[in-house]
Amino acid sequence: MTKELRWSELADVKDELAARDWFPGTSGNLSIKVSNEPVTFLVSASGKDKRKRTEEDFLLVDEFGLPAEETALKPSAETDIHCEVYRYTDAGCCLHVHTIDNNIISEMYASEGSITFRGQELIKAFGIWEEDGEITVPIVENYADLKRLAEATASVIQPETKAVLIRNHGITVWGKNAFEAKKHLEAFEFLFSYHIKLKSLNLFQSVKKFSAKKIINF
Amino acid sequence: MTKELRWSELADVKDELAARDWFPGTSGNLSIKVSNEPVTFLVSASGKDKRKRTEEDFLLVDEFGLPAEETALKPSAETDIHCEVYRYTDAGCCLHVHTIDNNIISEMYASEGSITFRGQELIKAFGIWEEDGEITVPIVENYADLKRLAEATASVIQPETKAVLIRNHGITVWGKNAFEAKKHLEAFEFLFSYHIKLKSLNLFQSVKKFSAKKIINF
Amino acid sequence: MTKELRWSELADVKDELAARDWFPGTSGNLSIKVSNEPVTFLVSASGKDKRKRTEEDFLLVDEFGLPAEETALKPSAETDIHCEVYRYTDAGCCLHVHTIDNNIISEMYASEGSITFRGQELIKAFGIWEEDGEITVPIVENYADLKRLAEATASVIQPETKAVLIRNHGITVWGKNAFEAKKHLEAFEFLFSYHIKLKSLNLFQSVKKFSAKKIINF
Amino acid sequence: MTKELRWSELADVKDELAARDWFPGTSGNLSIKVSNEPVTFLVSASGKDKRKRTEEDFLLVDEFGLPAEETALKPSAETDIHCEVYRYTDAGCCLHVHTIDNNIISEMYASEGSITFRGQELIKAFGIWEEDGEITVPIVENYADLKRLAEATASVIQPETKAVLIRNHGITVWGKNAFEAKKHLEAFEFLFSYHIKLKSLNLFQSVKKFSAKKIINF
Repeated sequence: MTKELRWSELADVKDELAARDWFPGTSGNLSIKVSNEPVTFLVSASGKDKRKRTEEDFLLVDEFGLPAEETALKPSAETDIHCEVYRYTDAGCCLHVHTIDNNIISEMYASEGSITFRGQELIKAFGIWEEDGEITVPIVENYADLKRLAEATASVIQPETKAVLIRNHGITVWGKNAFEAKKHLEAFEFLFSYHIKLKSLNLFQSVKKFSAKKIINF
Repeated sequence: MTKELRWSELADVKDELAARDWFPGTSGNLSIKVSNEPVTFLVSASGKDKRKRTEEDFLLVDEFGLPAEETALKPSAETDIHCEVYRYTDAGCCLHVHTIDNNIISEMYASEGSITFRGQELIKAFGIWEEDGEITVPIVENYADLKRLAEATASVIQPETKAVLIRNHGITVWGKNAFEAKKHLEAFEFLFSYHIKLKSLNLFQSVKKFSAKKIINF
Repeated sequence: MTKELRWSELADVKDELAARDWFPGTSGNLSIKVSNEPVTFLVSASGKDKRKRTEEDFLLVDEFGLPAEETALKPSAETDIHCEVYRYTDAGCCLHVHTIDNNIISEMYASEGSITFRGQELIKAFGIWEEDGEITVPIVENYADLKRLAEATASVIQPETKAVLIRNHGITVWGKNAFEAKKHLEAFEFLFSYHIKLKSLNLFQSVKKFSAKKIINF
Repeated sequence: MTKELRWSELADVKDELAARDWFPGTSGNLSIKVSNEPVTFLVSASGKDKRKRTEEDFLLVDEFGLPAEETALKPSAETDIHCEVYRYTDAGCCLHVHTIDNNIISEMYASEGSITFRGQELIKAFGIWEEDGEITVPIVENYADLKRLAEATASVIQPETKAVLIRNHGITVWGKNAFEAKKHLEAFEFLFSYHIKLKSLNLFQSVKKFSAKKIINF
């Protein structure tokens, strides 16, 4: 029963993100935890059109990303990254999508290794309610070797981390369940798009002038 | 009966705005007045996914934002702002949404404390039909203390005010009913997006040159 | 029968344009010719939410824009513009919509009084198939006096004109039927958006360098 | 049977691309191969509204683009380009669409005659998995003479080519079947939009600074 419920939740999230065109060219993948002992989770099968909803969209895998049921399906080539997220966080659901803006941010701040947002109401979506709350997203290089990429991703996860950007390779974001993972994803995409648009207007200098009493770094 | 009718109107508006992704990360909230004596209104329950339409989306509250019916639901944390709008205006419906562009405008003109639009046909959406009609939106700082934020919002409402921007915290807009509130919201978002795009093209200087006979401030 | 068929065609166009949010804040209006002798056409009733499809969306008017049937509905305040289009062209359908980009173009080129497009494949949508084909859209000032505005619009219509831009007041575009009017509208919006984006990239100078053998003015 | 299956696949792709407004002003056309010996393929009939799904959307043609069945329909004026694609590649499906961004790219790099992308995860959508994988799209001038245009397109097709851009006349992209053709199209559109946005932020110089160890040309 749990598996069917989780499947349905994950398929709903997939439908919604697909409708936004957040899986261009069959990119991206999603997963949702089904059990904790042992760890099993549903993950995207390799290379499907995310616009369609079929019984072959996901398969059950174990903590090492190996099929935990008899199936002809192959787990997504990036399943290792999901494994690392479930190993190092209390995530119940993990989403990986490519958008123009998350790739732009990953490129803009690759040399800094992260981007930090402050002074934005949307930060509350991460459960951060203080006036000066901030959220940081680490950025890692994009290695073609997917084992190495999974390790690089794992290496930047801190207890408060909610997402990792891979340079020109989208965002991997999680939450304790599908609802929270999607909430985090939407909030990050909003912050990314806002940041880029403000940047394109060359408003960051004037912003400093506006806010003498507090340091704001959007 | 009135309550059911209002619920349905508000749910329709919510569906439409959600389809535009104007409630990113479960942000935003909506309300609609049900009775005047005593004042009661339906308001978003806290933390729901606005993409779904359920029987737990709204609850009835009184003029102080306290539940006016037996319910396990919690009113949105920002219900106080809706209370102030109903106290100081003749609004019948009040919408609060985050868009990239309303947040950009709130940041660009925060130091001025407001933005005024002139010379745009869309201003007629506010019932202003004169050739030189103009509409002003006050902008307030975003306080984490929601009581203080509600008071700051209330303090800038003038008789002709149709909306308030909170810095990096979206727009709160109202109308005498759901139809008018949505009309005002759409018109403001159009004016915001137009302004930002013209600004990004560095066209404001040349605009002045074009219009010798009248002063236009888009 | 003709009236019902035309109504249905116009309602279909309205639905499609409304889904693109091209009627922000209840702006915009549409019409379709029903008979030639005498001239009658269906036109948007005043102030409706274009997202809804109802039996009160349109009413039949005569060549002067006066109701040609018994009805409690009021024709759109801008019906005079439709009357002029039917008077001076062989249009069978006329669409008026506001988009960010058509308003930007109307402002950018208001002082020139028109904009001309060349060197774009989409120009074929206007039935212009030559390699050096071009299409010009006149731009008029936006007068609050709607009679004066209708006259100003009429005054710039040439035999080859397919649309008129009103400064910061959207586009009025027509075709011999609903299919062609929508085709023209889509093609113009594409040309407007392309032009603005190329402009924002400051590519017009380099464009000249690229095309030594022919003069291109996008 | 095969014809009906292919028709349905092509109609599904058309619906999805139409929903994204990638056929503005009835522009664009699609085809899918039905048989190899002799070569026959379904291709868009001329001048249809791509938003509607009808039994007259496509017709069967032979390798020369002539009707291979009795029909009153006319093949798209650009059918010759599809013929060339099937002649010089192993394509099973070919899509031609106009987007703002593919036209911008075709104009920006017309003088270079091509654009090459590197360092982007989305390049994997073309079956290129190496860390330094790259993909090149040739760009040809837009000739009004459609025979000449078809020849110009054919002349730049190399074994590894997946698409050709025609200057200010959209992209022609293919794959071994409808699924792959759409995957390629989505990936190219993503790369185009990303490139333009990064360019608009003037980030290409700083990009070079960021990546001392490898040469990246987005």
